[in-house]
Amino acid sequence: MSYIDAEQMEAIALGSAIYGTGGGGDPYLGKLLAQRILRESGPVNLIDVLSLSDDALVIPVAGAGAPVVLTEKLPSVEPLIVALQALEKHLGRKADATLCLEAGGYNSTIPFSIASRLGIPLIDGDTMGRAFPELQMTTCTLNNITATPMAVVDDRLNVLMIQSGGNSFAERITRSTLMEMGGSCACALYPMTGAQAKKAVIRGSIRALQRAGQVVLDARRSGADAVQSLLEALGGFRLFQGKVVGVDRRLEGGWQRGVVTLQGLEEFADSTARLDLQNEFLYASVDDQVIAMTPDLICCLDTQSGEPITSEAMRYGLRVTLMGLPSHTAWRTPAGLELAGPRRFGFDSNYISLEELAAAHTKTRSTVTV
Amino acid sequence: MSYIDAEQMEAIALGSAIYGTGGGGDPYLGKLLAQRILRESGPVNLIDVLSLSDDALVIPVAGAGAPVVLTEKLPSVEPLIVALQALEKHLGRKADATLCLEAGGYNSTIPFSIASRLGIPLIDGDTMGRAFPELQMTTCTLNNITATPMAVVDDRLNVLMIQSGGNSFAERITRSTLMEMGGSCACALYPMTGAQAKKAVIRGSIRALQRAGQVVLDARRSGADAVQSLLEALGGFRLFQGKVVGVDRRLEGGWQRGVVTLQGLEEFADSTARLDLQNEFLYASVDDQVIAMTPDLICCLDTQSGEPITSEAMRYGLRVTLMGLPSHTAWRTPAGLELAGPRRFGFDSNYISLEELAAAHTKTRSTVTV
Repeated sequence: MSYIDAEQMEAIALGSAIYGTGGGGDPYLGKLLAQRILRESGPVNLIDVLSLSDDALVIPVAGAGAPVVLTEKLPSVEPLIVALQALEKHLGRKADATLCLEAGGYNSTIPFSIASRLGIPLIDGDTMGRAFPELQMTTCTLNNITATPMAVVDDRLNVLMIQSGGNSFAERITRSTLMEMGGSCACALYPMTGAQAKKAVIRGSIRALQRAGQVVLDARRSGADAVQSLLEALGGFRLFQGKVVGVDRRLEGGWQRGVVTLQGLEEFADSTARLDLQNEFLYASVDDQVIAMTPDLICCLDTQSGEPITSEAMRYGLRVTLMGLPSHTAWRTPAGLELAGPRRFGFDSNYISLEELAAAHTKTRSTVTV
Repeated sequence: MSYIDAEQMEAIALGSAIYGTGGGGDPYLGKLLAQRILRESGPVNLIDVLSLSDDALVIPVAGAGAPVVLTEKLPSVEPLIVALQALEKHLGRKADATLCLEAGGYNSTIPFSIASRLGIPLIDGDTMGRAFPELQMTTCTLNNITATPMAVVDDRLNVLMIQSGGNSFAERITRSTLMEMGGSCACALYPMTGAQAKKAVIRGSIRALQRAGQVVLDARRSGADAVQSLLEALGGFRLFQGKVVGVDRRLEGGWQRGVVTLQGLEEFADSTARLDLQNEFLYASVDDQVIAMTPDLICCLDTQSGEPITSEAMRYGLRVTLMGLPSHTAWRTPAGLELAGPRRFGFDSNYISLEELAAAHTKTRSTVTV
């Protein structure tokens, strides 16, 4: 057994922000909530999904909404507990474990609060291997596990139960009710058996967040270059370094959408980068040449401190480094790309992996230099 | 006991269209469905609400959505049955009777299908005494009966259960999900006890629809003036007679909204009338002088045949007569006007009753003549 206490939430939250790729909400708020609750109700038992019995009931929990709303509506554990319990009541049995839907952002810290408060284990894993802006973009969908029945709960603890329907339907219904629920809501969804969880869950991703966060914390303590340490520890690609010179951001359809423009610094001094976002950073290009795209991860880090920058915190003048991380292999399949590839988000481009793009880009740059 | 068979649905549907005041959907489609089902599953037992035991369970059913969508999506009884049964399951008991939410439009014919198919009685009454475009505009709301738990079902029989929340919240959630559900949905809502129903239900309104419809059918058969017969039978006000010369109509927020312009005929020859609609006709003025407003009923009848014209059937060239009918007294109270008065729909006007307006208008016209 392996327990997570309030202190360890520090590194997990930092790692969550790195893997959050700008979206999924600021884990800082989720961390504060989780730390308070873990101190009150005890540490969380983080288990391997393989330790579950095949007939166990797993109920993931997540918040939905545009992250920017969370900066005004502080998170609370009550709506999440009401959501999980409404789903338990609907199913007529108790959950044996809970699970993070995403490894990244607010949604990978908030389930700790539920696990601690209800005294149930949390699985060391998630269903995205990153953060994505839509709830059907999960390895559950890729494994034919339905998001419904799904409980949606607002701040006033009003419960909406989407009893049936496909995963995209559940996403659209949730999204369409979000604004009436004040821009954000708590969800309990994708109830699944232990057997299903063993197939669908991306194992070990919570500990991976913790390790990533710890790299930055250690680098800061030792005075090392945090960004460089992260690139080495995670096998990341250094995509760009520059200064934020433009932020065009709007709340649209329950998401934060927009474009961030970066003016290059150091060896990128003559270049301009563009980051397209829908909650998460989804598509990055330098001088109109794509350098990374969904489902691969595009992380934006403060060049000095290694602090990850969320899309809602993005502002003029920030000095940042873009880091690319390869997505989980499940997303690089035809089914994965159909669900969360560039065309799914409206980019007129076939998927090209981070590794291929980096190779091509290096070649081009060399050619130009020659 | 008093039974309604398929033949009687003819007059009920016609009366429903008259009281539908342009909205609530075309009862013609609901009639065809009800007639088929009543022939298959037997006549409907129409009961007085006072005959219910105080602890009986009453579950009203209704369709929601912009009526114009119904002209493309033919009504089906399945989603309504799924909605009612989902609510029964949620409540853990069977309905003893069903009820029309509105007396007017599609929603006063469709519950006959449910009652016949499930073999439960239908209450002779409703909760609006007319049709209104929003589901919180009921005498239930005026009597503190909540719309939730409420089941919302789409054509593919996906079930959404709004387990809690106020009546306006239920309306907003339903409306916001409508477009994702294809523009219309089936609802089972306002579950109430017999004791609550006895307080809230407007008694006898289904038989009233039938009588109104019968007046028109009889007039047509005898060659009498259908419009004149209706005015006399219902105590209606003849507000205007003219030709439709303009229809500005759009689908907006799950409603049909718009303005109809009429050029006067006969004694109204020099005048122009304007009808504002949100599914229902809500505000009528002649030469910029208001002649009727919500919650009073504004019925639009074909001048020749007495056939009621729905807002989606409104088109250039129709010769129509506008008839005003006083609303139920529940709507003329401060609480009733707050819920469904002119300001609630964005008209910058205090409520003035049809009777007062008619008196003032007659006086003005006389003055002008002098």
